[in-house]
Amino acid sequence: MSKSKINVGNFFEDFKIGQIIRHAAPRTVTVGEVALYTALYLPRFAVQSSTAFAQAIGYERAPIDDLLVFHLVLGKTVPDVSLNAIANLGYADFKFLIPVYPGDTLSATSEVIGLKENSNKETGVVYVRTTGANQRGETVLSYARWVMVKKRDRDAAVGPEVVPDLPKSVAPSELGKAAPAINVGAYDKALAGSRYFWGDYEEGEKIDHIDGMTVEEAEHQLATRLYQNNSKVHFNQYYEAQGRFGKRIIYGGHVISLARALSFNGLENVFHISAVNGGRHVNPLFAGGTVFAWSEVLEKAEIPGRQDIGALRLRLVATKDKPCAYFPLHGADGKPDPAVLLDLDYWGVLPR
Amino acid sequence: MSKSKINVGNFFEDFKIGQIIRHAAPRTVTVGEVALYTALYLPRFAVQSSTAFAQAIGYERAPIDDLLVFHLVLGKTVPDVSLNAIANLGYADFKFLIPVYPGDTLSATSEVIGLKENSNKETGVVYVRTTGANQRGETVLSYARWVMVKKRDRDAAVGPEVVPDLPKSVAPSELGKAAPAINVGAYDKALAGSRYFWGDYEEGEKIDHIDGMTVEEAEHQLATRLYQNNSKVHFNQYYEAQGRFGKRIIYGGHVISLARALSFNGLENVFHISAVNGGRHVNPLFAGGTVFAWSEVLEKAEIPGRQDIGALRLRLVATKDKPCAYFPLHGADGKPDPAVLLDLDYWGVLPR
Amino acid sequence: MSKSKINVGNFFEDFKIGQIIRHAAPRTVTVGEVALYTALYLPRFAVQSSTAFAQAIGYERAPIDDLLVFHLVLGKTVPDVSLNAIANLGYADFKFLIPVYPGDTLSATSEVIGLKENSNKETGVVYVRTTGANQRGETVLSYARWVMVKKRDRDAAVGPEVVPDLPKSVAPSELGKAAPAINVGAYDKALAGSRYFWGDYEEGEKIDHIDGMTVEEAEHQLATRLYQNNSKVHFNQYYEAQGRFGKRIIYGGHVISLARALSFNGLENVFHISAVNGGRHVNPLFAGGTVFAWSEVLEKAEIPGRQDIGALRLRLVATKDKPCAYFPLHGADGKPDPAVLLDLDYWGVLPR
Repeated sequence: MSKSKINVGNFFEDFKIGQIIRHAAPRTVTVGEVALYTALYLPRFAVQSSTAFAQAIGYERAPIDDLLVFHLVLGKTVPDVSLNAIANLGYADFKFLIPVYPGDTLSATSEVIGLKENSNKETGVVYVRTTGANQRGETVLSYARWVMVKKRDRDAAVGPEVVPDLPKSVAPSELGKAAPAINVGAYDKALAGSRYFWGDYEEGEKIDHIDGMTVEEAEHQLATRLYQNNSKVHFNQYYEAQGRFGKRIIYGGHVISLARALSFNGLENVFHISAVNGGRHVNPLFAGGTVFAWSEVLEKAEIPGRQDIGALRLRLVATKDKPCAYFPLHGADGKPDPAVLLDLDYWGVLPR
Repeated sequence: MSKSKINVGNFFEDFKIGQIIRHAAPRTVTVGEVALYTALYLPRFAVQSSTAFAQAIGYERAPIDDLLVFHLVLGKTVPDVSLNAIANLGYADFKFLIPVYPGDTLSATSEVIGLKENSNKETGVVYVRTTGANQRGETVLSYARWVMVKKRDRDAAVGPEVVPDLPKSVAPSELGKAAPAINVGAYDKALAGSRYFWGDYEEGEKIDHIDGMTVEEAEHQLATRLYQNNSKVHFNQYYEAQGRFGKRIIYGGHVISLARALSFNGLENVFHISAVNGGRHVNPLFAGGTVFAWSEVLEKAEIPGRQDIGALRLRLVATKDKPCAYFPLHGADGKPDPAVLLDLDYWGVLPR
Repeated sequence: MSKSKINVGNFFEDFKIGQIIRHAAPRTVTVGEVALYTALYLPRFAVQSSTAFAQAIGYERAPIDDLLVFHLVLGKTVPDVSLNAIANLGYADFKFLIPVYPGDTLSATSEVIGLKENSNKETGVVYVRTTGANQRGETVLSYARWVMVKKRDRDAAVGPEVVPDLPKSVAPSELGKAAPAINVGAYDKALAGSRYFWGDYEEGEKIDHIDGMTVEEAEHQLATRLYQNNSKVHFNQYYEAQGRFGKRIIYGGHVISLARALSFNGLENVFHISAVNGGRHVNPLFAGGTVFAWSEVLEKAEIPGRQDIGALRLRLVATKDKPCAYFPLHGADGKPDPAVLLDLDYWGVLPR
């Protein structure tokens, strides 16, 4: 009786290939979320910061920050997909498709597209394709994600292994869908904070974003609750004190947002994340850590049919308690530098 | 000169039976407050989370969370009623009467309905009937509350004892007034997060809400300031270091909101608190504590004239640093379990 | 390559007299910012708190708190003016000129109006005149500010010394421009929280605001990010651990807002800061400190042409961990009391 109505989350053997999960808690995003997002990360990209700026270049209004949309969509999937996850393994084919504005209501649906039991039979990898939709049913965001999920019962039988074929990167022809036609003549570089447009960046260029941001417990808890992400490890010190690390683990998405906001210094005109090719949370972050970040231009691409904007494929690396003047990534032994928190590969767009 | 214009709060002997106090600081509630409330507690009830969901079932828009309305109204009363209180003793006959929407302006008025000096002559119990009204003068919330207030002067003469006759519970016929007619056919159980409606709960059923939430100083301070509740014990470590506990005491309402948000897991469709029959803050909470919660269905009631919704009388118990699998309430000695923070008795409504 | 696109801020020798700097990151201010501001400081002035109250007395809607406007404008100037500042020396001729409402977009421009190298040749004082404008290009705020900025190169040649002639105070004839004509008959003193109007205050009157507010790291970081103020010393514990104080320094404006909110108790009807004559951050504040405040009425002035409102010139003093019953300001030796954080001289307006 006591737990019959309780959601304890799905275990590996509960997932079936082709299963469609409509996630709970649709959410109307408002200027309230926007203000909190600013207070949590210090983003300064002019398009999201100013309605006047956004409208001048072609947006209906100031759009919701791409990562805020992502966090809200991902948050909805947690109770069904990753409540019993022990690792967040990766993202692929991750595309923003339509701008989201204050007042829009977001909901999320996931389809199980892959299942692979681990050889220890105690866990397995679950692959889902998640889509976030607005109140008109339009898909605003679509991504594949895979997580390692515990089995409830080691001996439970599972179906045959299915590993989806996911692209290594999103093709340039698929970029820019969530960016309206930009009136580049009306794009005020002084207000945006930089004179560097797409043509000014070079493949191989590395940028140390120089600033650092120390994270407090209250901050990441506020952020993660704002996203209605109820993953237990972020909030419950009573249990975490007895856990792997002895302390609450900060939501990996918090690090992505911090790194993106830090990247403003050097990438001021990269006003929109159009797609994510892949990403790894290399190490966990805990309260008290200071996050630094650096970027590398992996590739420059024209977007077919778009003369207004171009795309930069960027590696965004975040570190903990380690300034990035020397672009830390791997140690001398070729293994990841233990200070690295995040290694993200995304397509940003900016005016040409 | 120095303090003549300062509000030092009323003492027991300052209150008179029948006295009406119009409280200061009317407040326009906006989506800004809603976003912060989400970030502070992680509520996921679909009606309050989504304008689209709320409108589909019959609300004008997504209503303001009932407890946010309560905290804002109570906050206004603090400077006049409880600035010199040493204990918050109870609530009764507490009813939500009209939905509150973003953009509404709340103000509060209290009438002194009872006064009872304690035998030590140093304190007395003040009973007030507080009403919260919107900008049209409609009462949105009404409750009786009693607090123990210090006397300024032990020897001050006081009037005869008056103890109001307050109902032990709110009658089912008085419930549901702040819930519009619900279109149950349009109520999407998947989006709401549960398939259990009124008919699925049984009297005596107990639910362990399983999750826990650790509270930081910054969080409860932000919350209590959001409510413009200026009770000193929540904010001033300089004084509290010298006080009873050596630390700031968390506003009791913060615990109510945490417990209510935790109760989503198991009570997903109880979308509205219609009335509070009574409640006790059994023990104080301090920063660093982790709050858990469990519920018991005390009673099931039909609401006269309503086929759309039914009422559950629920006991909501919150604990500190104690999971609730065994439903902690009393110790073997019959005394309250020292881990119990809150024992609340309310009427929740949900679709039938 | 690594830092070519990075903003490392201007150094003393980078500034030229007459130089105009258009600052980045225009910002649309919304009810989201308003709610966060309330949660950060606990302001209770009825005009800013209630649309209904504001409209009744003559405002279009509830205006944005004056200090929130100031923080947002100042925040924009930081990357260009004070990223390499080592001291915030003063303000003068600081005037609010037009009310700001939710939905307005603020941008900022500064003109360099003074430059004075210090004799050590390692730093110099930069004087700017900063104006904040709304989306219609109307100036909402104008102030002179001077900061001590590092030189990049001790040997860099600098121009002749220019020290601007700034007024010691703003004349009463310049006050009240951002306050519409107030319908004093509709000003509800009970809702505002005090019966004291302009005529009830006396020159020389001192008011101990009695309450105190303890500041947490998460709180000042949220505030300063909300203002998009990226001054490094507030956020980066990794660097500050090696710095002058070993810890993050709280943004001085945070103290101003705390002191202003505390001053509600005794100055409830001083609904608007019209001008700032001068101000000094006497000592830095760190997390864990408890802020107290007191005020002195330095001067009473009629505002030419205004029968609705009058002006009080107020000294607002904030202290750290020191209650203000004895109005701490100077020690017996005539030096500033070490507990004093802020000594602000402003013109507040209230109904007559």
